[in-house]
Amino acid sequence: MTGSIAYLGPPGTYTESAALAYAQTVQGGSEAVACLCPYPTIAQTLQAVAAEQVNVGVVPVENSIQGSVTMTLDTLWGLEHLRIQQALVLPIHHVLISQATELVAVETVYSHPQALAQCQRWLAQHLPQVQQVASNSTTEALEHLPQDPTAAAIASERAAGLHQLPILARGINDYPGNCTRFWVMGWATPQPELKPSSHVSLAFSAPANVPGALVKPLQVFAQRGINLSRIESRPTKRSLGEYLFFIDLEANLAEAQVQEAIAELRPYTEVLKIFGGYEVIAVARSQVNH
Amino acid sequence: MTGSIAYLGPPGTYTESAALAYAQTVQGGSEAVACLCPYPTIAQTLQAVAAEQVNVGVVPVENSIQGSVTMTLDTLWGLEHLRIQQALVLPIHHVLISQATELVAVETVYSHPQALAQCQRWLAQHLPQVQQVASNSTTEALEHLPQDPTAAAIASERAAGLHQLPILARGINDYPGNCTRFWVMGWATPQPELKPSSHVSLAFSAPANVPGALVKPLQVFAQRGINLSRIESRPTKRSLGEYLFFIDLEANLAEAQVQEAIAELRPYTEVLKIFGGYEVIAVARSQVNH
Repeated sequence: MTGSIAYLGPPGTYTESAALAYAQTVQGGSEAVACLCPYPTIAQTLQAVAAEQVNVGVVPVENSIQGSVTMTLDTLWGLEHLRIQQALVLPIHHVLISQATELVAVETVYSHPQALAQCQRWLAQHLPQVQQVASNSTTEALEHLPQDPTAAAIASERAAGLHQLPILARGINDYPGNCTRFWVMGWATPQPELKPSSHVSLAFSAPANVPGALVKPLQVFAQRGINLSRIESRPTKRSLGEYLFFIDLEANLAEAQVQEAIAELRPYTEVLKIFGGYEVIAVARSQVNH
Repeated sequence: MTGSIAYLGPPGTYTESAALAYAQTVQGGSEAVACLCPYPTIAQTLQAVAAEQVNVGVVPVENSIQGSVTMTLDTLWGLEHLRIQQALVLPIHHVLISQATELVAVETVYSHPQALAQCQRWLAQHLPQVQQVASNSTTEALEHLPQDPTAAAIASERAAGLHQLPILARGINDYPGNCTRFWVMGWATPQPELKPSSHVSLAFSAPANVPGALVKPLQVFAQRGINLSRIESRPTKRSLGEYLFFIDLEANLAEAQVQEAIAELRPYTEVLKIFGGYEVIAVARSQVNH
């Protein structure tokens, strides 16, 4: 049994779709999840896992268009004892939801800033005059629709169904390959059994203002032929110019040479956090709950 | 004469303060700027420079708490012929603006998501029950205030003055060292005269999925003792896992060894863009227009 799964809610968000896909994969669909618990923010979702209020938490990490979800990286850096159990890559298909029966009747489009940004070209072409208004989530944007037939929202097909609202347009993404990567975070067992993994994620702070401070850490992996699939810098929030680095490796954490590389990396860092080794599941469009 | 300066508006934004500080430095305050032109988005501000509708454009690049302003990086990558003329670092001091005479009367706080994020701890401590609502800019948040005495906005002191609205609380930043870096972008002359610079910014795409694809470019600078003051990865928007890298160097673009490093870097990149060499002005709090 999976037990309880926290996720960035409310129901109808893309993160809920990822949480549902995760529940299906771990259970083979045979057993009900005890609880799928929506949390209002990424920080609260991850804190619920850290406080052992839930078994795992699902949070977005990176979108193929918008890049990293910085709130997830910043929150993870500040928490202890969390491990990545699984990554999921979910295709993102936005739809335009409205009670309006034709596009010319739409005056305002509500959505999360990332979703609005991902549909800018479509909006410029089909709704050049509308006012675009930011909301806290794609689902929250739907709250404006029942009382206002000139309002529209960009959200998922599932969200439209949950709120029993009509879809006015489909295929409104500017980039058809739009997808988002999610991490399923769980509690780190004191002696984690190292299962084979396809990816390893870690983060570190490096001494500031040292030429080549980042070259040495990267060389540790390059000289072993270990590919970096992502590098992201985040401010330490102490002063402009001081950074943390988040790195994803295509590597098996259970392999000796990967463990060696991490041991060799440690002296080049101030603080080093290993978020774990994990496999990546690509969720097919047909598997996404509608 | 500076001529016309485009900036991310409307009047009262922190970018306007940066644009005003820039106008003062280049003119010594002796001459009026022909035009300070607000644009509604970062993309439109930069496009106005690229289309030669204005002489320069001022856009935010990076905040010490929230990190890179990704819209600026993504837009610059897509435009040609733009050069950084100057960087400015501006201290950010948020205030809480409201017609309410005491904090307990505030029910809703409006601001840009970055400003809200930068005051989360203060809000949790002093206004734990209020609803936080995202707006497109700190200045736009003020529009809710005249008609609603339970509404508050997080913006600059200057914005409060421009809109003749009272300040209810000061010093609400969670991090007192909060500052934002801005770039003044101008048109690239065909044969740019290389003035001495303290910083150089560039961006490149690297071949995907090659172990060490980033190590070689970084080594080019490290082996010459050139310090990287920032590295940022951005998705290419083609597929998850393909990145552009934005790099800031502490270097003088007019120096031979820096030119050599860039020449050596080129074969390791697919597309390489040099945004220019420039000096950084730290704007003192007393110089910020209130």
